[in-house]
Amino acid sequence: MIDLNADLGESFGRWTLGDDDAMLDVVTSANVACGFHAGDATTLRRTCVAAAARGVVVGAQVGYRDLAGFGRRFVDMDPVELTDEVLYQLGALDGMCRVAGTAVRYLKPHGALYNAVVHHETQARAVVDAVRAYDPSLPVLGLPGSELLRLAEAAGLRAVPEFFVDRGYTAGGALVPRSEPGALLHDAVEVADRVRRLLTEGVVRAVDGTDVPVRAESACVHGDSPGAVEMAVAVRSALEADGVRLAAFA
Amino acid sequence: MIDLNADLGESFGRWTLGDDDAMLDVVTSANVACGFHAGDATTLRRTCVAAAARGVVVGAQVGYRDLAGFGRRFVDMDPVELTDEVLYQLGALDGMCRVAGTAVRYLKPHGALYNAVVHHETQARAVVDAVRAYDPSLPVLGLPGSELLRLAEAAGLRAVPEFFVDRGYTAGGALVPRSEPGALLHDAVEVADRVRRLLTEGVVRAVDGTDVPVRAESACVHGDSPGAVEMAVAVRSALEADGVRLAAFA
Amino acid sequence: MIDLNADLGESFGRWTLGDDDAMLDVVTSANVACGFHAGDATTLRRTCVAAAARGVVVGAQVGYRDLAGFGRRFVDMDPVELTDEVLYQLGALDGMCRVAGTAVRYLKPHGALYNAVVHHETQARAVVDAVRAYDPSLPVLGLPGSELLRLAEAAGLRAVPEFFVDRGYTAGGALVPRSEPGALLHDAVEVADRVRRLLTEGVVRAVDGTDVPVRAESACVHGDSPGAVEMAVAVRSALEADGVRLAAFA
Amino acid sequence: MIDLNADLGESFGRWTLGDDDAMLDVVTSANVACGFHAGDATTLRRTCVAAAARGVVVGAQVGYRDLAGFGRRFVDMDPVELTDEVLYQLGALDGMCRVAGTAVRYLKPHGALYNAVVHHETQARAVVDAVRAYDPSLPVLGLPGSELLRLAEAAGLRAVPEFFVDRGYTAGGALVPRSEPGALLHDAVEVADRVRRLLTEGVVRAVDGTDVPVRAESACVHGDSPGAVEMAVAVRSALEADGVRLAAFA
Repeated sequence: MIDLNADLGESFGRWTLGDDDAMLDVVTSANVACGFHAGDATTLRRTCVAAAARGVVVGAQVGYRDLAGFGRRFVDMDPVELTDEVLYQLGALDGMCRVAGTAVRYLKPHGALYNAVVHHETQARAVVDAVRAYDPSLPVLGLPGSELLRLAEAAGLRAVPEFFVDRGYTAGGALVPRSEPGALLHDAVEVADRVRRLLTEGVVRAVDGTDVPVRAESACVHGDSPGAVEMAVAVRSALEADGVRLAAFA
Repeated sequence: MIDLNADLGESFGRWTLGDDDAMLDVVTSANVACGFHAGDATTLRRTCVAAAARGVVVGAQVGYRDLAGFGRRFVDMDPVELTDEVLYQLGALDGMCRVAGTAVRYLKPHGALYNAVVHHETQARAVVDAVRAYDPSLPVLGLPGSELLRLAEAAGLRAVPEFFVDRGYTAGGALVPRSEPGALLHDAVEVADRVRRLLTEGVVRAVDGTDVPVRAESACVHGDSPGAVEMAVAVRSALEADGVRLAAFA
Repeated sequence: MIDLNADLGESFGRWTLGDDDAMLDVVTSANVACGFHAGDATTLRRTCVAAAARGVVVGAQVGYRDLAGFGRRFVDMDPVELTDEVLYQLGALDGMCRVAGTAVRYLKPHGALYNAVVHHETQARAVVDAVRAYDPSLPVLGLPGSELLRLAEAAGLRAVPEFFVDRGYTAGGALVPRSEPGALLHDAVEVADRVRRLLTEGVVRAVDGTDVPVRAESACVHGDSPGAVEMAVAVRSALEADGVRLAAFA
Repeated sequence: MIDLNADLGESFGRWTLGDDDAMLDVVTSANVACGFHAGDATTLRRTCVAAAARGVVVGAQVGYRDLAGFGRRFVDMDPVELTDEVLYQLGALDGMCRVAGTAVRYLKPHGALYNAVVHHETQARAVVDAVRAYDPSLPVLGLPGSELLRLAEAAGLRAVPEFFVDRGYTAGGALVPRSEPGALLHDAVEVADRVRRLLTEGVVRAVDGTDVPVRAESACVHGDSPGAVEMAVAVRSALEADGVRLAAFA
């Protein structure tokens, strides 16, 4: 049994990104943008309504306040301000969920914030502080071994590690940087195979050919790259064919 | 008995506006900005915490997404998008209230949106739709006789009319436009007197010297003009000296 | 001889809109966004460089400061602020042109501002004031018969009327509103034919079947709708086959 | 002979910061904000007009696109995007200068960008690239010994080092961090004395009592702190009493 998550609700006004409806037919958890790195109010509401209609669980995909950079630039924020901006985003998305008949069920940082909280203790703590203040029953989704998950756990929150189905891993268990060869996998069969091994053996084949142990309760599929839907559908089909049950972790 | 309300939480980052702490010692209801026309996340949280600490009720002061114009420019929005932007703001502020141990207890439109919904039926309905979808128990605070209050009432919401203590009124009961003489009153004694007559006789002296009937459950004092705090304190003192009980309407 | 213009440079950060390179191979004038309704700095620079490389003339496509609404919502701005925001956009794009080895050669308002200045005298005058202050040799591109062109001419600026190749016209010479049937033409052959009649007879066939006179020095093709490039290529080919010379008006 | 510079034009819409008119009566160079960290279009125009009227030279105070953080948070930008955003700001302010009858005469980075380019070679180079592409005759104002000034010089630009009149210096010649004692000087007499020693002996007394050599062609006075105008006036008066001529470096 595993959860499939993807980043959704990332359109903004006139600009469309990804095919949210198609992805919502595949995933079990939707990381919905909260308006700071992407996502206008109407997109957020529509995405929450569409998720609720399919029984897909909604999580808050919080990011830096940086539309021009799509939240992909590290911002050296004061931790108090970061906590408050995460709270603002949590509340805003929760309001949209409320009118959609659901609620925010977990939090996952986006982009540069996601990467920052792997090692940046101050920012990781700021994110954890926001969740704890808002609702300590909300799980936090992130990278296995990250400061974020370590601090979340230490704060009594549920920490949920995830696996990236189409990203290459180093022998050390880290993601291969996007600028290096092997960073991205494009073959759905190979990707489905990796998820299968993860579930049965708890390992992933690294770029150097060795097997590295990976612990994950959720598998992340990308929502906005070309072929994203096809890849997600292929992964889901392969898992279902193997008898794996797909279910939200939250 | 009457409620005193003021616009608060309107600082933004480096830029400070008004003296929120001083005003919170005077008013019974705080119209807290929600980040679209003013109010960064830290300001909103601090204002909600300070309001809760004093037992001041928090309302969502929703506005157009227009920091450069401080929400004072009419924006001809699509009603669906307006409803959704109001929902977004409501949720964001409610999240801040939640961590402050309180909740959003009413809604009041800000600036150009406030003025628009006096006559603009489509926008007024869009605002009412947001409140109804979010929480139909939330009262809506606005101008007596406005489309907003009419439609709120028709939708089963509580509609709360307010009186502007330091604004001139025309013989027809409308506000004297800011560009005309008599638009603003600066004398605290005169202002306190007007609130007294409103409470005892239900009338206000118009710029032409006639008395016009005004129905109001709340009195609005301005928070950001020079002398705002002194005026608010004077009004409150005069009312208390008269034995008027000040209490939030919500 | 006629000019072909299109709206370009309207991507923003992660969000791509239209195929600017393909359109720049077709048009003679590029209305480049200036960052207020669309267009991040890198997109603007890239578009100006690509236009300059092809000898396409760059115009400033100025709009309301409204990324979320893509400049398609009327904003009731103070005329002084509107003049200043137009100046800011003009200067910003001109700087990009400068490093691209060219310069802003004309101005065209975008979206809701384009529509506003057809009738809104105050805003039309504010736009004209900006051009006059910045560079009175810059032509203004707009709707024939608009306040904008009338005031531009009265101020001694060159006023350039344009024709929309794929928009339906009413018998009165106005555009058919997008919400009504006949608002948009999708057949490239029919569209090319219209441009031909415009050039040879100075008329366009209206939705009611009558011929209305239209005066235009430029023909606007849309850059961001599906099939936009194909339509633009078809129009250009048909015109060239007819021996019409395509050249920038500025 | 020395130049006095200050950060100006940092109001935004409803929010006012500093007393620009008073400071323009004191300084010889105005670092005018460009709209990314502060400064709406009307503020920029007004500041450029007021500077030109007094013969004060205008420089572009470029910053990160971060209104909420006032440009005081480091943003890990792609260098190409940083170059382009600096160009955009340069052009926008230059347009304002143009209608004010002047021109941008130098560039100075603001806030976190100022601090970043002291050591961050990639961002320093990105800023230098923008100046070189826009106008290689523009001087760059910055911290003595910074990467910015080193790279500017290497690129053939004029590099102008500045001295902070009211900031404490370490024995190593760096600024005392704002969080430490001695970071800020508040006594105008002491401050004027420091500028005098800088000019006559080329040294500044550090927090540990030693004298450190400082090379500077401009002295920066703060524009927005309480007492900023008084301090600037006192420094100017003391310098003039000493027979020092105040003149813009550009």
